[in-house]
Amino acid sequence: SRIFQRTVRLRAAVRHLCPHSTLTCAARLSPADFHSPFLACSSGQFVASTRKLHVEPKSSPAGAPERLPFSKVTDEDLAYFRKILPGRTITDPDLVESSNVDWLKTVKGSSEVLLRPQTTEEVSQILRYCYNRNLAVNPQGGNTGLVGGSVPVYDEIILSTSLMNNILTFDNISGILTCQAGCVLENLSLYLEERDYIMPLDLGAKGSCQIGGNVATNAGGLRLLRYGSLHGTVLGLEVVLADGRVLDCLATLRKDNTGYDLKQLFIGSEGTLGVITAVSILCPRKPKSTNVVFLGCETFEELLKTFQLCRGMLGEILSAFEFLDSECMRLLNTHLKLPNPISDCPFYIVIETSGSDPDHDSQKLDNFLEEAIASTFVTDGTVATEESKIKALWSMRERVTEALTHDGFTYKYDISLPVERIYQLVTDMRQHLGDRAKSVVGYGHVGDGNLHLNITSPAKDPALLAAIEPFVYEWTASCQGSISAEHGLGLKKRNYIYYSKPSQAVALMGNIKAMLDPKGILNPYKTLPDNLK
Amino acid sequence: SRIFQRTVRLRAAVRHLCPHSTLTCAARLSPADFHSPFLACSSGQFVASTRKLHVEPKSSPAGAPERLPFSKVTDEDLAYFRKILPGRTITDPDLVESSNVDWLKTVKGSSEVLLRPQTTEEVSQILRYCYNRNLAVNPQGGNTGLVGGSVPVYDEIILSTSLMNNILTFDNISGILTCQAGCVLENLSLYLEERDYIMPLDLGAKGSCQIGGNVATNAGGLRLLRYGSLHGTVLGLEVVLADGRVLDCLATLRKDNTGYDLKQLFIGSEGTLGVITAVSILCPRKPKSTNVVFLGCETFEELLKTFQLCRGMLGEILSAFEFLDSECMRLLNTHLKLPNPISDCPFYIVIETSGSDPDHDSQKLDNFLEEAIASTFVTDGTVATEESKIKALWSMRERVTEALTHDGFTYKYDISLPVERIYQLVTDMRQHLGDRAKSVVGYGHVGDGNLHLNITSPAKDPALLAAIEPFVYEWTASCQGSISAEHGLGLKKRNYIYYSKPSQAVALMGNIKAMLDPKGILNPYKTLPDNLK
Repeated sequence: SRIFQRTVRLRAAVRHLCPHSTLTCAARLSPADFHSPFLACSSGQFVASTRKLHVEPKSSPAGAPERLPFSKVTDEDLAYFRKILPGRTITDPDLVESSNVDWLKTVKGSSEVLLRPQTTEEVSQILRYCYNRNLAVNPQGGNTGLVGGSVPVYDEIILSTSLMNNILTFDNISGILTCQAGCVLENLSLYLEERDYIMPLDLGAKGSCQIGGNVATNAGGLRLLRYGSLHGTVLGLEVVLADGRVLDCLATLRKDNTGYDLKQLFIGSEGTLGVITAVSILCPRKPKSTNVVFLGCETFEELLKTFQLCRGMLGEILSAFEFLDSECMRLLNTHLKLPNPISDCPFYIVIETSGSDPDHDSQKLDNFLEEAIASTFVTDGTVATEESKIKALWSMRERVTEALTHDGFTYKYDISLPVERIYQLVTDMRQHLGDRAKSVVGYGHVGDGNLHLNITSPAKDPALLAAIEPFVYEWTASCQGSISAEHGLGLKKRNYIYYSKPSQAVALMGNIKAMLDPKGILNPYKTLPDNLK
Repeated sequence: SRIFQRTVRLRAAVRHLCPHSTLTCAARLSPADFHSPFLACSSGQFVASTRKLHVEPKSSPAGAPERLPFSKVTDEDLAYFRKILPGRTITDPDLVESSNVDWLKTVKGSSEVLLRPQTTEEVSQILRYCYNRNLAVNPQGGNTGLVGGSVPVYDEIILSTSLMNNILTFDNISGILTCQAGCVLENLSLYLEERDYIMPLDLGAKGSCQIGGNVATNAGGLRLLRYGSLHGTVLGLEVVLADGRVLDCLATLRKDNTGYDLKQLFIGSEGTLGVITAVSILCPRKPKSTNVVFLGCETFEELLKTFQLCRGMLGEILSAFEFLDSECMRLLNTHLKLPNPISDCPFYIVIETSGSDPDHDSQKLDNFLEEAIASTFVTDGTVATEESKIKALWSMRERVTEALTHDGFTYKYDISLPVERIYQLVTDMRQHLGDRAKSVVGYGHVGDGNLHLNITSPAKDPALLAAIEPFVYEWTASCQGSISAEHGLGLKKRNYIYYSKPSQAVALMGNIKAMLDPKGILNPYKTLPDNLK
């Protein structure tokens, strides 16, 4: 075998690498992409792409509940919006259309108004007005979410942060960036890289997703293993509450223990508690060196041993430890004609290091690889020597999602588990489904205990869905896992919350919602379950 | 000069180093330490050490407000507590005494009951009972806080977590530890080090402080620069609410986006929203190598340039960047007879590195030092070669607090500022006070933008205090700083909250308090200001 035939050290990485993710860019979505009047939901039902949302079957827990008794937008309302947002109150149906549909094209609202404020004061005016008028509002960033959280369900007014895209301050000593919520993640990355910093998060959707939406959904992504979650890196938020009050928690301090840390409430609340209008965030220094290695293992147990070894030997330079199984590789070969860069193995690992000294990083990596081979944890592998090779290796991990779309109708699950359990779910699901599924594949972020479980079928298959759910949720709950590791609950998963949270906690979430948004106008039908009381 | 005469590489650090902190251990406090019936408050007023708290002057914003109309403990109450906590309901005044007084001996309550539950269920029973009876409760961990948050103000029942000291689980692959709230930080550290991990936080009070109290106060400490705040590293909490309900958010997952992240509310809420009974926390791997260097700079500007250089060249192995000024050095020399390890300079820096490869770490450090000298940012320095030397260098930073206690009555401030401003406050204060102060010294965590400003006087001096406050708070507010970076608000600083938080935010904190603890029985008179609506 070609064991490490190319273990040449990589020192390149003059610029930071491109997105390493399971998401392809959402920027190219346009109304023309919608061929069918019906859009398929991830949980299998169809959603009619008419002005009025229609959900079949009505009893599906992922389906939308009845429209709540919010007011409907009147000509007087539009006149008000046009007065405060001249030229930025969009009612042309063709222009509103793309904001009504989510990136996966599985959920479609029927909003007739898209508002594009530029300032916090404008957001405040909009919400104050809507609150008084009892008009529902759907806050929207880059609209790249996967759980139907970023588009209206009925006729909610769409409040887009896209024009709120100014960088406010950057402190080159502390690395603290302050910006408006609508800044696109990739633009922030480019801005920072010129200043020798990077964003603490990176996502495949970086070309479209906005920092406000990232924070509102507590986006995870590819750097979480290294730089931690947004709960740690976000230092401050400015938020407009449902009634239009501006909550200024936009601190630019690493430490501040003066009272309750209110901003935390809004991180991951999916726009249901307030509209994030500005963010301050702690940015790491740009690494001087990046290496990527692609390895093969015979068993998942050996993959976990490799992870352990890697954490010990790569230590502070480890920046990603991702995996995919042989089924993923088969789909990459079959549908995307991507050749396996090493010999066939049951499991594959993508490891990335980033550090401040290219020689040291290469040495650490070489030492680790020697030990991993000597201990027979890994059976084959290759190291990237140049940026194009790095990208090629990363694409084996990133393009699994794309390969899946060619394999058939895909049921997608984003599960968080104790790391030693993550592959057992794939094995059990495969056994449970037998030949009812076309493919059952597992990949994801080993370092974060985050499994992406995907099951394909030649076409939508309600019987298959019934075999998958609630099995997958019950299995996850039995391991105290999370049924949504990083994607959130949005519209699609709101009613599954009890699999991961006790009713006491969900009730308290309801109390918080009622306290901050007593009329429930902010992103209704999302995050919290229908049966909340 | 002796520039880097001892730049010998350090590879030692078989065990992790001892506490590097401004706090000396609180374990040795005993009732016999209280010589005087009067205990001095940090803000200058006296607190009578009688059963009934008496504050002079009444109008001081740091003084306690009138006792709120809670019930008083009756014999029936004691009988109930003795039934559920046989042998662990303490009423002997001598035994309750040490829990009535804070570590600084500046605040003294008059509680007559100390409860020592062992289980979450017992905490729940206690709170359910107290809630129904309208009895106020003071949750207490290691009682090492500095703002009077951990002791009763009047006759609140003291609920100690000291007997809740079991480690529940540790996952050697993910590094996730779950334990009861009363585990002493140092015990957790020792447990983890045997397993090749460390706690993500380290404090001088580690021998006494408890993880529950650390989380309740959002403790910062010496590893924050490297491992981030508890908002990022705490993965789950179990909390008993004011009415006895148990809120189980004790997840052991790195990622979980199912609804609002409720646990965040309790991190830093100082026991006013619930009693933390168990914690799950993500622990880093134990570094294989530690180096410490002590440097001198001519100006604070050069110190900041050194910090910048250091962040770039030490990168991922930098684990602490602390400073002290020449006034601190004078006090260390004068009062503790600690000799300056280098030549006299206006500013001194303590840098610590920790990493996974001793050779690489030493090389990075050498390269950084060469560059720092060549650029003339630093004028003198020494590198520790063995563990005793490392401790000696760290003690120059850690023992400043102790030196201050010998210098006179000390007014202490824990300020967070944009890092480039932190020393300006010391300079301005020195100029502002002129010869009214004995010493005005600055030291702290440069990496976190956290200044410890201390002002001494031969004795308590209300005129001096009036010159310091509100000057120090107004100055801090004018830079959008925090008047409490890591110590919290507790009793002493609750009324200064508006210097760092807008009234909108404070009002919302009040709403959260009212929602979670409608009778206000949990740690009353703490964190929130008296004039809260």
